[in-house]
This record gives sequence, C-alpha cells and structure tokens, in this order.
Amino acid sequence: MISTPTALSIAQELLRCPSVTPADAGALGVLETLLKAAGFEVHRVTFSEVGTADIDNLYARIGTSAPHICFAGHTDVVPPGDDGAWTHGAFDGEVADGLLYGRGAVDMKGGIACAVAATLDYLAANGGQPQQSGKGSISFLITGDEEDVAVNGTVKLLQWAAERGEQFDHCIVGEPSNVEAIGDTIKIGRRGSQSGVLIVDGTQGHVAYPHRAANPVPDIARLITALNDEPLDAGSAQFQPSNLEFTSVDVGNPATNVIPAQARAKFNIRFNDHHTQETLRALVDQRLAAACGNRIRARIEWLPSNADVFVTKPGAFTDLVSASIAEVTGRTPDLNTGGGTSDARFIAKYCPVVEFGLVGQTMHQIDERTPVSDLDKLTAIYRGVLERYFA
Amino acid sequence: MISTPTALSIAQELLRCPSVTPADAGALGVLETLLKAAGFEVHRVTFSEVGTADIDNLYARIGTSAPHICFAGHTDVVPPGDDGAWTHGAFDGEVADGLLYGRGAVDMKGGIACAVAATLDYLAANGGQPQQSGKGSISFLITGDEEDVAVNGTVKLLQWAAERGEQFDHCIVGEPSNVEAIGDTIKIGRRGSQSGVLIVDGTQGHVAYPHRAANPVPDIARLITALNDEPLDAGSAQFQPSNLEFTSVDVGNPATNVIPAQARAKFNIRFNDHHTQETLRALVDQRLAAACGNRIRARIEWLPSNADVFVTKPGAFTDLVSASIAEVTGRTPDLNTGGGTSDARFIAKYCPVVEFGLVGQTMHQIDERTPVSDLDKLTAIYRGVLERYFA
Ligand SMILES: [Zn+2]
Ligand SMILES: [Zn+2]
Repeated sequence: MISTPTALSIAQELLRCPSVTPADAGALGVLETLLKAAGFEVHRVTFSEVGTADIDNLYARIGTSAPHICFAGHTDVVPPGDDGAWTHGAFDGEVADGLLYGRGAVDMKGGIACAVAATLDYLAANGGQPQQSGKGSISFLITGDEEDVAVNGTVKLLQWAAERGEQFDHCIVGEPSNVEAIGDTIKIGRRGSQSGVLIVDGTQGHVAYPHRAANPVPDIARLITALNDEPLDAGSAQFQPSNLEFTSVDVGNPATNVIPAQARAKFNIRFNDHHTQETLRALVDQRLAAACGNRIRARIEWLPSNADVFVTKPGAFTDLVSASIAEVTGRTPDLNTGGGTSDARFIAKYCPVVEFGLVGQTMHQIDERTPVSDLDKLTAIYRGVLERYFA
Repeated sequence: MISTPTALSIAQELLRCPSVTPADAGALGVLETLLKAAGFEVHRVTFSEVGTADIDNLYARIGTSAPHICFAGHTDVVPPGDDGAWTHGAFDGEVADGLLYGRGAVDMKGGIACAVAATLDYLAANGGQPQQSGKGSISFLITGDEEDVAVNGTVKLLQWAAERGEQFDHCIVGEPSNVEAIGDTIKIGRRGSQSGVLIVDGTQGHVAYPHRAANPVPDIARLITALNDEPLDAGSAQFQPSNLEFTSVDVGNPATNVIPAQARAKFNIRFNDHHTQETLRALVDQRLAAACGNRIRARIEWLPSNADVFVTKPGAFTDLVSASIAEVTGRTPDLNTGGGTSDARFIAKYCPVVEFGLVGQTMHQIDERTPVSDLDKLTAIYRGVLERYFA
C-alpha cells in the first residue's frame, strides 16, 4: 500500500501560504499537486467582477458517475491581526505541545487538509478509485473567496460546475462546526438572513413648538419596540426561533433645537424554515402597518439577500456522517442549525449539504490553533464517511 | 416743541446697515448720534472672546436716579438668505404699499426705532428729562450679538453695567412678541431650556448570537418611549406644560451583522417654573433609573445651559404696559410665556422684564416686513408706557 501524506503535513503546507483574501499565495497549488498525483482532474477557475480582485478557485474530481460526494471549503483566511501577539507565527505552521498554530488552522485549512488526507488514503486503499467497480465520484470544490466580499467564490464556482454538467449528490463543508470537542456538532442547516431599513417620516420643526412638528424619534422608538418584542415564531423541528435584531438607529441631527424630519433604523433578521424571504417580508411589513396605525408614516426598505434558510433534514446521509463520528470519537453529534451563514447555503441549492470540521473556538482569533490529534480524528471521520458512502 | 425723527426714518437708517452678526455696519452709530443729541450719556463697549469675533455693544442712559426703565434689544440680524428672492432689497429700507421691507424690519431694528422715536418725542415734550422733577432714568441696552453665538452680547453688557453700578427697575425688550396683530401678545416670561444626551451601554456581538450580546438599540427605544410619554408637569399659572423632545438618536453602526456596543439619543427640555435646572435634572435622572431597572445600563450627560426659566408675574408693570397697548390698539394683550428663548432671560436676573415689539410673522424670512402703521402704533405704545411710568 502506498503511503499518503498526513493531514498535519498538508495543513502545515497550507498554513505557510499567507492567503489572506484575496491572495492565494500558493494555497490552491498545494491542493492541485496532491490531487493531480492521485488521479483527479483538476480545474483552476478564475472569476472577476468590477470593483473586486480576481479570485482563484479550484474544482477537482475523480470518477465520472454517481454517487458523487463533494468536499467543499475555502483556502482564504482572515487577516492575522497583530502579528506580534501570536505565540507562534500566524503563517509558520508550527506545532508546539501537540497544537498546530496558524491563521486558518481551524477555519479551515485544517479541515481541507483532513479531507484531502482522508481521500488520498481511501483511494490508495481502493485501487485508486472511489469504488472498485469503477463507479462513484469524489470532488473538491475549493474557493479563495469566502472570508471577505465573497463575490468571486462558491456561488460562481457552483454555476460554472452546473454549466459543465457536474451533478453533486452530497456535500460536506469542512467549516469548524464543533463547539467544544470534535464530534459534538454537525451543522445541518443555517437560518436565512434578511436585512432592512425602517424609515419613519416626520415633520421638521423647532423644539419650542412641537405641536407644529411631528417628531419621528419617539415614533421610531415605538416601532422598534413593537417589531423587537413580538416573536416571529417559536422555532421549528430543526431550528431555534427566528430573531429580528435592530443593529442601528440614526437621525444625525446636530441641532439641539430642531425636531428632525426623518429617523432610520437598521435591522437584520435570522429566520428559520417557517419562512421564505417573501413571506417574512410580508409578515414584518404587516406588523409595521399595524404598529403605525393611521398616524405614523413609516416604511421598510428591504435589502437584497442571498442568504436563504436551508436545512438538510436528518436522514440517511446525516446518519452516515454521525456513525463515522461516533466510531472515531464516541460522541453522538448534535444536528445543529444555529449560528451565522456559510457557503453551505449556496451548495444547498444543488444537493444535500452538511458542515463538519474542526473545533471553532479559536477561529478568527490570535493564536488560532488545533490539536494535532483533532486532525487525526477528523481525517479518520472523513475516511469513515467515504467508506460508508461507497460501501 | 422740537420735531423729533419718526420711527420709520430711524428704522430705514438702521435697515440700510447690513449688520449681519458679527458685523455692526454702522447700526449702533445711528443710535449713538440720536441719543447723544437728546442728552444721553452713551457708552460703546466692545467685548472679545477667543474663537469669536469682537462685538460692539451700546449702553445709553439719561437721568441718574430711579425709577429707571430700560429698552433692550439687538441691532444684529440673521443673513438675508437668497438676496434675489426679496421683493425689495434686504438692506434698502424700502417702503411699498405701506410696508417697510428689510432684514430686521421686525426682528428687531423696527422695535428699536420705535423705542428711540418714542423716547425722543417723550423727552422733547418733557423738557428733555424723564421727569420734570429731574428724577427718573431711561436707558438703552443694545447688543450686536444676539442672533448667532451670542457670547459677546447681553450677558456681558449686563455684567459691565452692574459693575459700574447701573440699577434697572424695569425693562422692555423690543423683540417681535405679537403673533398676528400688534397688541395681541406681551411675553412675560420664557421657559427654560436644558439639553442632554441619553447614553445606553450594551455589549457588542454578532447578530447570529444575540444571547451573547446585549443590544442597546431596543433598550434605548424603550427608554425614549418612557421619558417621552410621562408628562413633566401639567403646566402652571403662567406656563404651558414642560416638554421633553428627543431630537436625535444615533448609533452609527455600518455593519448589518453586528450588534452595537452603545446607542445615544439627544433631547431638549423646555421647562416651566415648576422646575429649576437642578430639580429638573434630578427628576429626569430618577425616571431614567426607574425605566432602566436592574437590567439596562444608561446615563444622561447633561449639557451646560444658560437658559433658566423666568417670569415677570402679572402686576403693576404688566398692567401699565397693557393699558398703553389697549389705549393705542383697543386690544387686551395675552400675557404669554410660550415659544423659544431670548435675551430677556438674562435681563430677568437683574429686574422685571417683558418683551413687546412688532408682529413676528415674517422674522428670519425672505421679505421680512412690517406695516408702517405698526411702527406708528408701537411708538405710541412705548410713548404711553413712558408717560405712565414717570407719571
Ligand atoms: Zn470559514
Ligand atoms: Zn430678535
């Protein structure tokens, strides 16, 4: 049997590429070399858009037929912050006391390294093919544009793949899904996100003559309270309750003796599968109208959103991933839908998708790090997923 | 009997000086010449302060003993705005169809002109002295710094006068007090003004994890509603109810996915004689604490205020002014305390003061103007006040 590289060695190679978005710094090349050597057909695809940097992406596939499992992720990282504050260099890939340090160690070069290591090992043990029958496909869908504006990343790469006829049956995104220990959490969905601006029109005037004016400030305060206090729902089988959060309220009136003409408040809603963007907007618009009555003149400007709610309902695929996790870690993972958005929401439009990777505690922080033993466990888990998937 | 100048001719001379604050443009010189000729001792006093323009002021007095009545006012004016929009030049002093046009026609060169004309006429008829006995004093306290920052105006001029031993028994400020027709309103007081900033501290966080943050936006909305909705009082004998008006609320958070750390709201209170600045601040602080409970962290930063409430209670002096108004106009004036602040609040610390002048409708507007007949009536009213005062 051929000896394939360990997740640690791949992760170290990736960490040493300072691929702060939009830089690639050689990170995708590391994957390209490894995957090509294992027989993958590798595509490097660059996307452009006016006003943003060109971004390199990678799509690699071995096999031509179903079943097709895809590992997805990103090699770009957020900036290291204060370099001098790191115990070990942010781009050195150093191991100390069993911990691998570096920006991206958990989010998510570490996760990608485990997926590649598991796949190479699995293929080596299976005659170089996903299935001994010659059937089955494994692919990698890796973008360099997730952490920043994310316009030249996963969305375009999925469209590009669809146009060339790629069909995915299942996908695992290697984002750091676990909260405290590897195996504790699979993300099976995410709430949607929808932002809006509440605009209240009043009538400008002098504070000494308030009866000649209509002050929008107390009115917007009332509307904020009304929209904030009434729950959007009580949660669903897979989701916590939807939540509307006001993030700013602004008038910008510098004159202490003037009643302003308008007040604006920004809000963001994280919504579950009781809603679509359309029904959610209608619900909030209706509540606003009720809170305004005939007196207050207010409206909501809804901002465009590409963050629909999605969920991969518990079933055969999540059972398979859970079984591999349980075998390696002894833990039964929580099938969770909490937290922020991720690229998984885009993949969900093409196939069932779950997120499972390392432990997220240190992501985006100084001294981002992962135990090397977690890399070994995650590699074993991914290896177990492949075995079960193609069994 | 000597013929003295008319209010119209004095007003025209004043209007032709483009004395937009801080410029004097000769306006005080017009008064100095007239008053000196009538036997007044005239002082020109210039005040300075770092960061502001030097401002010329005038104090003139005839007579050395009580009773001492003072006419107070300002010769500076607000800018004309769009010069081309005026039917007649803003600084031409033109009369058309019985109306005198110009910036300051009612606020308040017109009022000063009437006071000077009435005084000169009264003195000419009384042997050049306030009282034939040789007793009594009439003075003019005129500033060039009322309409703008007003730091080198009435406050300093009053201090200067006090330091040289001037004692005022009564004062009339010739601001345009009337609402619709001359004689309808005497201002006998003004509410105080006190501004503050409400600051609510929360805990910053991500909108996807609101339970880890404390959002100050819904909290400040609740506090605005609480402070806005509970009346400060029900009004008093001379005053309408005090009023707290929120003029701005600002967070300035540009990130749609971030719960902000702080929210701020500005407010202004116009308060009546149920309160002093101190008791008012204590009352609002106490209401805030009640609205916050143990949960919300909020405080008020009170801004410095020089606008205390004052009132000249109805009595002999207001009766005297009212009687003269009734004789000339047939109207019984309303003794009013509504509207914004004026320099009368500073004078009130030295002696009883009322405001009575022309009709305010066009003040600070394009085509500011007064009927010439109103100048005649106001002159006759001031003349009647002097007669009664020294009778
Ligand atoms: Zn990530
Ligand atoms: Zn004025």
